[in-house]
Amino acid sequence: MEKTRVGIIGMGRIGKIHYANIKNQIENADVVAISDPYFDSDLGIPNVDAHEVFNNKKVDAVIICSPTDTHADYISASAQAGKHIFCEKPHDLSIHRVIETLDEVHEAGVKLMLGFNRRFDPNFQKIKSLIGMGEIGDVHLLKITSRDPSPPSLEYLKSSGGMFLDMTIHDFDMARFIMGKEVKEVFAVAGAFVSKDVEIAGDFDTAVVTLKFNDGTMAVIDNSRKAVYGYDQRLEIFGSNGMAKVDNNKPDTHVLYNQHGAHGSLPLNFFMDRYTMSYQMEMEMFIKAINTNSEMPVTGTDGLKALLIALAAQKSVEENRPVQIEEIGKNASIIL
Amino acid sequence: MEKTRVGIIGMGRIGKIHYANIKNQIENADVVAISDPYFDSDLGIPNVDAHEVFNNKKVDAVIICSPTDTHADYISASAQAGKHIFCEKPHDLSIHRVIETLDEVHEAGVKLMLGFNRRFDPNFQKIKSLIGMGEIGDVHLLKITSRDPSPPSLEYLKSSGGMFLDMTIHDFDMARFIMGKEVKEVFAVAGAFVSKDVEIAGDFDTAVVTLKFNDGTMAVIDNSRKAVYGYDQRLEIFGSNGMAKVDNNKPDTHVLYNQHGAHGSLPLNFFMDRYTMSYQMEMEMFIKAINTNSEMPVTGTDGLKALLIALAAQKSVEENRPVQIEEIGKNASIIL
Amino acid sequence: MEKTRVGIIGMGRIGKIHYANIKNQIENADVVAISDPYFDSDLGIPNVDAHEVFNNKKVDAVIICSPTDTHADYISASAQAGKHIFCEKPHDLSIHRVIETLDEVHEAGVKLMLGFNRRFDPNFQKIKSLIGMGEIGDVHLLKITSRDPSPPSLEYLKSSGGMFLDMTIHDFDMARFIMGKEVKEVFAVAGAFVSKDVEIAGDFDTAVVTLKFNDGTMAVIDNSRKAVYGYDQRLEIFGSNGMAKVDNNKPDTHVLYNQHGAHGSLPLNFFMDRYTMSYQMEMEMFIKAINTNSEMPVTGTDGLKALLIALAAQKSVEENRPVQIEEIGKNASIIL
Amino acid sequence: MEKTRVGIIGMGRIGKIHYANIKNQIENADVVAISDPYFDSDLGIPNVDAHEVFNNKKVDAVIICSPTDTHADYISASAQAGKHIFCEKPHDLSIHRVIETLDEVHEAGVKLMLGFNRRFDPNFQKIKSLIGMGEIGDVHLLKITSRDPSPPSLEYLKSSGGMFLDMTIHDFDMARFIMGKEVKEVFAVAGAFVSKDVEIAGDFDTAVVTLKFNDGTMAVIDNSRKAVYGYDQRLEIFGSNGMAKVDNNKPDTHVLYNQHGAHGSLPLNFFMDRYTMSYQMEMEMFIKAINTNSEMPVTGTDGLKALLIALAAQKSVEENRPVQIEEIGKNASIIL
Repeated sequence: MEKTRVGIIGMGRIGKIHYANIKNQIENADVVAISDPYFDSDLGIPNVDAHEVFNNKKVDAVIICSPTDTHADYISASAQAGKHIFCEKPHDLSIHRVIETLDEVHEAGVKLMLGFNRRFDPNFQKIKSLIGMGEIGDVHLLKITSRDPSPPSLEYLKSSGGMFLDMTIHDFDMARFIMGKEVKEVFAVAGAFVSKDVEIAGDFDTAVVTLKFNDGTMAVIDNSRKAVYGYDQRLEIFGSNGMAKVDNNKPDTHVLYNQHGAHGSLPLNFFMDRYTMSYQMEMEMFIKAINTNSEMPVTGTDGLKALLIALAAQKSVEENRPVQIEEIGKNASIIL
Repeated sequence: MEKTRVGIIGMGRIGKIHYANIKNQIENADVVAISDPYFDSDLGIPNVDAHEVFNNKKVDAVIICSPTDTHADYISASAQAGKHIFCEKPHDLSIHRVIETLDEVHEAGVKLMLGFNRRFDPNFQKIKSLIGMGEIGDVHLLKITSRDPSPPSLEYLKSSGGMFLDMTIHDFDMARFIMGKEVKEVFAVAGAFVSKDVEIAGDFDTAVVTLKFNDGTMAVIDNSRKAVYGYDQRLEIFGSNGMAKVDNNKPDTHVLYNQHGAHGSLPLNFFMDRYTMSYQMEMEMFIKAINTNSEMPVTGTDGLKALLIALAAQKSVEENRPVQIEEIGKNASIIL
Repeated sequence: MEKTRVGIIGMGRIGKIHYANIKNQIENADVVAISDPYFDSDLGIPNVDAHEVFNNKKVDAVIICSPTDTHADYISASAQAGKHIFCEKPHDLSIHRVIETLDEVHEAGVKLMLGFNRRFDPNFQKIKSLIGMGEIGDVHLLKITSRDPSPPSLEYLKSSGGMFLDMTIHDFDMARFIMGKEVKEVFAVAGAFVSKDVEIAGDFDTAVVTLKFNDGTMAVIDNSRKAVYGYDQRLEIFGSNGMAKVDNNKPDTHVLYNQHGAHGSLPLNFFMDRYTMSYQMEMEMFIKAINTNSEMPVTGTDGLKALLIALAAQKSVEENRPVQIEEIGKNASIIL
Repeated sequence: MEKTRVGIIGMGRIGKIHYANIKNQIENADVVAISDPYFDSDLGIPNVDAHEVFNNKKVDAVIICSPTDTHADYISASAQAGKHIFCEKPHDLSIHRVIETLDEVHEAGVKLMLGFNRRFDPNFQKIKSLIGMGEIGDVHLLKITSRDPSPPSLEYLKSSGGMFLDMTIHDFDMARFIMGKEVKEVFAVAGAFVSKDVEIAGDFDTAVVTLKFNDGTMAVIDNSRKAVYGYDQRLEIFGSNGMAKVDNNKPDTHVLYNQHGAHGSLPLNFFMDRYTMSYQMEMEMFIKAINTNSEMPVTGTDGLKALLIALAAQKSVEENRPVQIEEIGKNASIIL
């Protein structure tokens, strides 16, 4: 089998993860080009302008890890150059721009995968598999807890699109992935409790979002931008045959008992440690879908639908009422 | 110290618990009369008509465990007879009737305790105490999971007032107890997934309820009438200094590891096993408040406020919108 | 069914537990007499000389909770008076005296139960039941951890017979109970690490004891007189089909996560809290064996065999070699 | 900094792990030669005769992963060629041969590390670090549980040196590592319960080993060659300030609650999954010790001392008595 030749645009934290995973873990892919003007390590691979990557005939697929506001343009350019695309979330903060570029991807006949890496985490995969095996029975309720260790900088917050589009969007995708159904209605309550910057940015940092699916079943997501005890990523599924839940991963299994109590380790605090396996599996699945010419495990439509839920959640907070997805999606009817 | 002399009205499951707790666990109280026409064991205590209990000069306090539709009348009769009152929840399904009898209790100068026993559970007490000690910091979010092992009979459902007034009302009280704040707004989604009877009764059996408190902080409650794995009673509190949670109690601590997996015991399945300690403590606190002439740990107003939240939740499902407590409580303004 | 009428000799901590359990939990037994010159509460029951209890025709059974050095004499007196006997461990520190009184019990045709209460603990019962159901398969290895929160007083230590006869004897009985086999050989290592008093008393406070059963399978017990984190009572069983273990009981299920770690409650610290249920069940089983005229669940022979193991352990430490039970039991051959 | 150039002798399971770790995880080392006649993948590195590796001037260090009976010879050859040495355990089954080659290593002035990888496991490192920080206080007792998922082949068993030299030797090293003290006396009981092959090989498959350290403190190790629920690797440390334990690692954190119980995942079943991190850290430490010219974290003497304990355990079973290390080590007095 020939190796898939990959170009990476953006060698920040995430770009470096994908680079290392392809290099060390994936046998049938090679990174043949990178593009990042601020990256100056010598990997023995040409570091070129982004457009040289798109135009490089030796590149089969492009991995887009550059800032969010470049995503849509780079997806467009990759599609036009006939390259398969892996793009970090979010695709774009504008529905119209997302739809426009998805159309281009469709017309170009290339594959696009969105970087919702958490789907590939062994804990969440286990939950999905238990549901698939019928261990939960008819699923009635999904609960997601998703809390960050600390809020981002004011600068980041200002261009993030708000907590729902920046952070909760992972949970919206997770809800669709786990439930295997479409969300119909969203109700959200939110507040700014943990950070002055969040207030200055006109954003919120704490939220509870209730999702109603098209068959009346439900999900509830709770978020905080600041869990002092670390990165808190848990999930529980409840149904007619039982309930399953997954807990955080910890760096070790120790428990210390002394006269003050029983003490254990905190959850892995950094998303790159917590989701090490999911980043590996994600990239493996991307390369595999190219090599076997099969459908991407996370599509552009998945990205669009998560975005619609996020926008509905935002509107729900603004207007303090449940918001129907179809209110948001009206203009997006061709794709959905 | 003289012993408090107690009469028990209703010797069903709950009446028997209170009887046994007073007899076996509480030194400074005696049961001197019971009233239950269907109860025929000989406890060596006169089993008389309810009104003979109220009129008995040797009775200091009355414990009302008879059917819900008798509660308000018996509270009224007890108050008029100058007896302190312990009444199982709910006081009454009508706000007006509740307020009316609370006025009578107030005028009679007797003490009234509502039977929200879960407040006295060691797990929930521990959470309350951690908050009190500042271990959680500013509290941002409360999560309550409350699931019954199986739905009640159709007959019971028909007169129950609906899931929110019958079952979730415990969780509404718990939310106020743990947060130490008043609920301002309620949003609920609900469905009937687990029982035909529930559908016939026009009720629901699964719900997610979001509460907004007067300072903008939040709670979310999830309920099911049927958890096949048993009685599921958990709680989690999150704030600026940390998070604490309590899990279910189990009959033993065993874990069996075999080739199929690691297996442990299910949660205690029966509310009387799960809440053994809370029933004991509840009755102890009732007797103590009488003996020390201090305030009851759960008052009639606590019962009324939980009722308002339950009615708001019901209206929220009916009208699919967040409902303000003050919409429900308009006519109850004198008490609140 | 007629109630069994019980007399209690010794109303210290343990005597009071048995009294309360019979009074509050056991329907078909009554305490009709007690004997304790230092006990002055008025229970409405005559407090008389021990011999008046033995001679009282209205007493069916005697519960002996007086100091160890009275046990054998009181067993003897009870047997001669034709009363069934419950005796707290140890029966006596001398094998000869134990055998002598067991002979008297046998001749008198009364029943004798030794107070190895831990057998009735729900955790250990669960392990026993898993073995009985074949869940462990052929059992190869038993591990018992048994640690006290703090060493006893020097005065107590001096007359205790040493750690193996006083403390580990519970674990020796547990090993026989769980394995359902006889111990053949004992090897023990021990030290005095936690208490000056223990050294003064010529005793030890920390030990590891290896037991070999008659079929070559094994158990290992580890003890300490001082676990600063509380009363540590755990057990693990390993065999051809799997492994099962039980953990300590805790007062609540809370876990607090803050920036320093994840923190939970310590094990129940006091043996009377830890073994509440086992004391109840033990007394229930004693009364039931009398009422149904069936064999006692813990016999005098069980007490004797645990004593032999304890003496073997002691000899093993003294001579630093494995000791055969038959070396100790030579003179006890009639009974074994 | 210049990279350390490594040759690997033996590219079986373990050789491949070390190869991959150096290639993917360790920046300042390169594998420049391998030697394995049965290995035919093309890694782009010359696969040569072992002696060509020793004679290769571009090789700084040799990693010996070939069969046990070649270890001593290859250590000798490496030392004579002036290469640093990493050797998988065991060094050799003969004390005399071990001492002989350790002398050669010493004279050659090269560094030697023995492959006791478990020392570098995050769980055991955490225990070591808690002890170092005084969290346990004076350490009184160490407990190690070490069980394999299934026994090796008869062929392997015949040349393994027996369970203590092949399997328990890891636990003997762990005991020395955790306690930071020397073992003085060993007592072992053992049986053959799980495998006919083990009986045929005259070996045993189940054991309990008690170690006494030079200050009287203790450790107890329990082993089985066949835990049907997987690879069981736990440890507990007890002392004057508290107790700490580590549990097995699991592939995910899920718990499924259904009507039959609460079910979770089994421990990671394969030593290469369980000890992934420890193999990485081990190799990193080896390279670091070379690059910084500092002492190896596991020395040849560590290997020798573990071997002495293993031989003492074997003698203890054969003679059913506690065996002093100095009985075994008499002839090894120069080194110890």
